[in-house]
Amino acid sequence: MPLVSVVIGSMSDRELGDKICDVLRKFGVEVEYRVISAHRTPDKLEEYIRESRAEVFIAVAGLSAALPGFIASRTLKPVIGVPRSVKIGGLDALLSIVQMPPGIPVACVGIDNGENAALLAVSILSLKYPELKEKLAKYREEKAKRSFEVIA
Amino acid sequence: MPLVSVVIGSMSDRELGDKICDVLRKFGVEVEYRVISAHRTPDKLEEYIRESRAEVFIAVAGLSAALPGFIASRTLKPVIGVPRSVKIGGLDALLSIVQMPPGIPVACVGIDNGENAALLAVSILSLKYPELKEKLAKYREEKAKRSFEVIA
Amino acid sequence: MPLVSVVIGSMSDRELGDKICDVLRKFGVEVEYRVISAHRTPDKLEEYIRESRAEVFIAVAGLSAALPGFIASRTLKPVIGVPRSVKIGGLDALLSIVQMPPGIPVACVGIDNGENAALLAVSILSLKYPELKEKLAKYREEKAKRSFEVIA
Amino acid sequence: MPLVSVVIGSMSDRELGDKICDVLRKFGVEVEYRVISAHRTPDKLEEYIRESRAEVFIAVAGLSAALPGFIASRTLKPVIGVPRSVKIGGLDALLSIVQMPPGIPVACVGIDNGENAALLAVSILSLKYPELKEKLAKYREEKAKRSFEVIA
Amino acid sequence: MPLVSVVIGSMSDRELGDKICDVLRKFGVEVEYRVISAHRTPDKLEEYIRESRAEVFIAVAGLSAALPGFIASRTLKPVIGVPRSVKIGGLDALLSIVQMPPGIPVACVGIDNGENAALLAVSILSLKYPELKEKLAKYREEKAKRSFEVIA
Amino acid sequence: MPLVSVVIGSMSDRELGDKICDVLRKFGVEVEYRVISAHRTPDKLEEYIRESRAEVFIAVAGLSAALPGFIASRTLKPVIGVPRSVKIGGLDALLSIVQMPPGIPVACVGIDNGENAALLAVSILSLKYPELKEKLAKYREEKAKRSFEVIA
Amino acid sequence: MPLVSVVIGSMSDRELGDKICDVLRKFGVEVEYRVISAHRTPDKLEEYIRESRAEVFIAVAGLSAALPGFIASRTLKPVIGVPRSVKIGGLDALLSIVQMPPGIPVACVGIDNGENAALLAVSILSLKYPELKEKLAKYREEKAKRSFEVIA
Amino acid sequence: MPLVSVVIGSMSDRELGDKICDVLRKFGVEVEYRVISAHRTPDKLEEYIRESRAEVFIAVAGLSAALPGFIASRTLKPVIGVPRSVKIGGLDALLSIVQMPPGIPVACVGIDNGENAALLAVSILSLKYPELKEKLAKYREEKAKRSFEVIA
Repeated sequence: MPLVSVVIGSMSDRELGDKICDVLRKFGVEVEYRVISAHRTPDKLEEYIRESRAEVFIAVAGLSAALPGFIASRTLKPVIGVPRSVKIGGLDALLSIVQMPPGIPVACVGIDNGENAALLAVSILSLKYPELKEKLAKYREEKAKRSFEVIA
Repeated sequence: MPLVSVVIGSMSDRELGDKICDVLRKFGVEVEYRVISAHRTPDKLEEYIRESRAEVFIAVAGLSAALPGFIASRTLKPVIGVPRSVKIGGLDALLSIVQMPPGIPVACVGIDNGENAALLAVSILSLKYPELKEKLAKYREEKAKRSFEVIA
Repeated sequence: MPLVSVVIGSMSDRELGDKICDVLRKFGVEVEYRVISAHRTPDKLEEYIRESRAEVFIAVAGLSAALPGFIASRTLKPVIGVPRSVKIGGLDALLSIVQMPPGIPVACVGIDNGENAALLAVSILSLKYPELKEKLAKYREEKAKRSFEVIA
Repeated sequence: MPLVSVVIGSMSDRELGDKICDVLRKFGVEVEYRVISAHRTPDKLEEYIRESRAEVFIAVAGLSAALPGFIASRTLKPVIGVPRSVKIGGLDALLSIVQMPPGIPVACVGIDNGENAALLAVSILSLKYPELKEKLAKYREEKAKRSFEVIA
Repeated sequence: MPLVSVVIGSMSDRELGDKICDVLRKFGVEVEYRVISAHRTPDKLEEYIRESRAEVFIAVAGLSAALPGFIASRTLKPVIGVPRSVKIGGLDALLSIVQMPPGIPVACVGIDNGENAALLAVSILSLKYPELKEKLAKYREEKAKRSFEVIA
Repeated sequence: MPLVSVVIGSMSDRELGDKICDVLRKFGVEVEYRVISAHRTPDKLEEYIRESRAEVFIAVAGLSAALPGFIASRTLKPVIGVPRSVKIGGLDALLSIVQMPPGIPVACVGIDNGENAALLAVSILSLKYPELKEKLAKYREEKAKRSFEVIA
Repeated sequence: MPLVSVVIGSMSDRELGDKICDVLRKFGVEVEYRVISAHRTPDKLEEYIRESRAEVFIAVAGLSAALPGFIASRTLKPVIGVPRSVKIGGLDALLSIVQMPPGIPVACVGIDNGENAALLAVSILSLKYPELKEKLAKYREEKAKRSFEVIA
Repeated sequence: MPLVSVVIGSMSDRELGDKICDVLRKFGVEVEYRVISAHRTPDKLEEYIRESRAEVFIAVAGLSAALPGFIASRTLKPVIGVPRSVKIGGLDALLSIVQMPPGIPVACVGIDNGENAALLAVSILSLKYPELKEKLAKYREEKAKRSFEVIA
């Protein structure tokens, strides 16, 4: 069974993290869900990255959001970053996550957009786990149904 | 052999597109390289997406950069977006690419950061093609060597 | 009778879309009003654009607001885009809509400014339907009355 | 024959204004081309707007770009605004043009994007002059040809 | 007795306009207080500017805040502009007011900062009406008293 | 004869300062022209403000542009601030100058817009020196002549 | 006993100032806590800086936040600046504080981030007062405990 | 003798790093000067931080500038961050450095402002090494001399 790690930078990111886990679980993806701060508990984070058997990492962080880049610098697996809007609308977190230096990529999704982080992880995993492709197709179809309506 | 599609929105994105292909080829990844505009040739783009056997898409675009989102809306495969700095430092392209609506994720990398787009694709493919993991590790090591020096 | 299409990208744009329709109807303009997502239901959108007999399109969208550009890329008719403030004050949607690549224009109005979108459509239609000019003049006069006052 | 007015706010906008006129003339559209400053020669501008028989106005301006809004406040005809990048990448002009108050719309196109201003004018005129529709279709086709290429 | 004109662009600027008038009146400055929209009632505005005997103008406006620049373009008297935060924190109004083209200056104060607009007007008038200088000094002293405190 | 003080924050602001002096002198305004840094030589600045007999101050500064606010905090005379574009397009200097706290106003003009600073000073002085009004009218007329032209 | 000065620019900064003092006192650092406005009471501020025996200054200010730079220009001791979000998310205060001219440094911390201002002061003082290092280590440990958790 | 560590994130930061070292050496401060990437060589960085006997760290980085925060998360000593303008004027690096989460402070100086980083380090060290205070006073005096001039 595919395994995804969801790491949030602080307890205040909890709601966003929960949402991500919910979406992942709908796809039958197993989830490791941790609160670990890149700045306050770097050793724990390092240790966790080294030992985790997750195939994809999702990291949520606000402000100077170093968490996704930190993980990316210590793993070769795909890392997805979710900027959270804590100050100035989340522009600080967005730029901190997306503007990684050449060599260490992070896959950034939209501000507070936990659903897309989960779906991107599923899409990535579906290369290896083809059954996810069908589930993804179904999920989209469901969503599409609610995205079309003749009002007048 | 893994296959990645590199689509640039216009001929002016050529340099950035070439760079991406170069990096991908260093990893032995086969590349489909196209110029297709989401706005000027949407039918060609749709047709291409439908027929391509690429496992990952990389899309480069500036301004109101709709290309990555367009591709993401028509495939379940992972799509990586690269914002190009044409106006206001590339902030327009960055926001257009990263702020996708819930349901259709794009994996955004940094402004003009073609190298990271390629490396992210390789990292994603390495879930399925384990031999890429080693190459990725080697690439990083090479890079790391040039990223450390005692000057004084 | 002139016909305008109002397309909103998601149900959450409903209030803004309703406002636009209200203003258009005040001018005796017939309205086609649809929810269609450019990213979640692109085929529906394509089909709709192809079949609609509207003379002007108004498209409302937030975030990475691809809807107006998508319509513009598939019709030769005038397309008006309305950026909605969902994140960072609507700056993302504004830039996504206004910064179209050379060749495919969108007529962008202000953030959340549904009234102006409707009035712009009426102004455009008035080239062909001269009776609209009078109505537009009257509308402005009404507005002007509430825009001037001696307080002290 | 359709007539479009192209007004630039100062001589330094000349290159952008010329480009717009060139595109319009390719479509057989007659052009009135003026330099008139909304701030330095408001009476001339007022007089010109009153007397012009143009069916659509295109106004180019940088900085605190009041020109398009000024014209829109004195005509019922469609007004297209083109922000020019003079300072801070043109963000000042973009916001000055697009953020019009409810009641007086301006159709804003991208920063320095003269081609789109011209094409939008042609698209608007095509409602009344159907022959323009064909020319527009041809123009797009030409552009589309140069927007698709298989590189590798 | 010195006379200052306070013009607000719409009824929604009322609170800010009232504040300005209050401060001016504390200094014994006579106030003309008007709602006039630069975009919806330009003729009224022109007429008013021509006929007003005010020595300084203060203009309050949000969004694409053309009001201060419009007044400045039609008078040689000092014009003070106050950007109001309606959208994106007032950045649009600030840039629209402050980035005037060379030749037609506007004296811009801070976003929503009505008090400073009034004080700047008084300071300007004090060149001609020396009695205002004393009042200004007293006002500052009062303010200074509430701006210093030993807490611990 | 009216006297204006022009203070620049560092030698690198020299070109902008010279321009301001040139414009002022065209109006027969006497100029005191100083380089004084608010941060590096605050005592000199204080002393200068206290002793200067100038009726209006113009202060040019980039970055964290404290100069205009510093002067305004130590004089009751009108102070005009000119933000200079040194970093991020001058947005830092603009915000530092214009966002003064309630109580201490600065009259901010556009980024690098020395001409407007000088003209605003002349406009302010013209309340007391009516002869300046005529000169100002002539200056505008001259400018207006070069701001209107029929190109086609 | 180490002494830190906490200066807030106005009474409205009180909550943030209190927080800073609380954190400092937890470390046994003595605090001088003042409200002094750089713009409204510059002489008081100057006098205070001259006479204070504090070893580090922390200055809190919003808008055109001149306070930290003012202090830095009149002392050789380390000055820490805390931007407060009053308008446009605090970006104005951030830029005003951090973009100091070469020669007069201010140590800027995050928007509204009083805790970090206090901790930075403690860290600076710990060079001279080694007992603070231990307390700092303990504080971090406490914080770290609440920054790591296995949720799932 | 006081020792300061200067760490630059990549060889392209060399010029800025050299400038910092030059200023530090003028004060007789010993310098450890390293190129270490937080993202490409995190282990080297960790090892270096653990072993360095520097009393203050200065870290220079562009883009998603994680370097200063990384160091701050692994030392209790003061850490100074210098944002470098690589993209969008350095706003990305500024926000990444300054918006640290509560608990782990970084002392941020202005964009590309190496001189201030060095001077801040000297100011911090002067608490423990009083001889630096005199040198700092002299440095300022020298600078002040070149910051005051009567031009006219």
